Amino acid sequence: MKNAIILFSGGLDSTTCLAYAKSQGFNCHAISFNYHQKHSAELNAAKRIAKHLGANHIIIDLPNAQFQGSALTDEQVNVPDFHSNNSIPVTYVPSRNTIFLSFALAWAEVLNANDIFIGVSAIDYSNYPDCRPEYIQAFQTVANLATKSGVENNHVRIQTPLIHLSKAKTIELGINLGVDYSMTVSCYQADSQGLACGKCASCTLRKKGFAEANKLDPTLYQNK
Amino acid sequence: MKNAIILFSGGLDSTTCLAYAKSQGFNCHAISFNYHQKHSAELNAAKRIAKHLGANHIIIDLPNAQFQGSALTDEQVNVPDFHSNNSIPVTYVPSRNTIFLSFALAWAEVLNANDIFIGVSAIDYSNYPDCRPEYIQAFQTVANLATKSGVENNHVRIQTPLIHLSKAKTIELGINLGVDYSMTVSCYQADSQGLACGKCASCTLRKKGFAEANKLDPTLYQNK
Repeated sequence: MKNAIILFSGGLDSTTCLAYAKSQGFNCHAISFNYHQKHSAELNAAKRIAKHLGANHIIIDLPNAQFQGSALTDEQVNVPDFHSNNSIPVTYVPSRNTIFLSFALAWAEVLNANDIFIGVSAIDYSNYPDCRPEYIQAFQTVANLATKSGVENNHVRIQTPLIHLSKAKTIELGINLGVDYSMTVSCYQADSQGLACGKCASCTLRKKGFAEANKLDPTLYQNK
Repeated sequence: MKNAIILFSGGLDSTTCLAYAKSQGFNCHAISFNYHQKHSAELNAAKRIAKHLGANHIIIDLPNAQFQGSALTDEQVNVPDFHSNNSIPVTYVPSRNTIFLSFALAWAEVLNANDIFIGVSAIDYSNYPDCRPEYIQAFQTVANLATKSGVENNHVRIQTPLIHLSKAKTIELGINLGVDYSMTVSCYQADSQGLACGKCASCTLRKKGFAEANKLDPTLYQNK
């Protein structure tokens, strides 16, 4: 079996991605990051889901939150309710996906894995620049120039199975793969039990996805 | 004064790079990494030099050595003496510069810095793929696609003032800038006092540089 690395937050998209990689016959190695996100409940979800799906799993501790300047990490900046517009939101974390992919790339070399899965989508997303197809393509170029495996023509592929899927289509894919979405945590301000606020951008996109897919939303919401 | 981020190991090249960035009028923010390198004496050198040059300085702790699979971090793999050939050596650390640059990029966004300096050279180097000009160019593309500043056309530049300099030319540049190379540690297996082995690839390139520049080598070597 070929090894694959899966960037894995414990949320809806990365869980679908992990289930998809597994369905493609990969031996899955999931990597999560403690970047001092307020919603660190997602890491507990990640542990449970990785175990449930039989994936190897590591959590990387990143340095302090202030370094990262974001509403997701800075206690002085509130996570806003969802408002649709085209600007980059305050929940953007500088260089987050680049840092995550860099570690995934290191682990890929150590494990002789050619495939790195990341659950980004260009459809229902929050205007984060590091989720766009052109960004992923550019990182793949870096990955192959940066590494021993790239130089030896043992190409590294950044796989994005959700890139052209709406949230509804992602949910349909996951349900077909047997994903239990009640185990996943997407909310930017989930409480310590993983209960969702229902109001942030991530909750809003997720709710809309279940509605559009005409599926029961199994998300556990806070009672307030 | 404009802010700049400098990838800073405490070695000969990155110290020259820091002195160069300072000479260009930048307010310098140096970033070092504890990646469990055997030659962690370089971090003490980095602290002293950053203070000496009046630069802001942070050290980022990265996760464990085994994750990184390299003679520089793995106690089971010896650092070899220098042998000239064109293959990637066992001292290669998977994805190292990509991880380092990703953190530098995050810090650049937080500090509104457009310039990231890295002391790579395409002349006297150790066949690390992530030191080549095409790699740096590709990472700059990633940096501008990944970030809010890139999207807002506030371009991020990866500056490589040493890229076309031999080690001798780098040393001449540094001496002209007033660098005290006795403070720097380049050796891959420097002891806890920072004394150099004189035999590894890094020591060999450094020695050759001082000889070719016809300058006194101020490196402190181990007595053995």
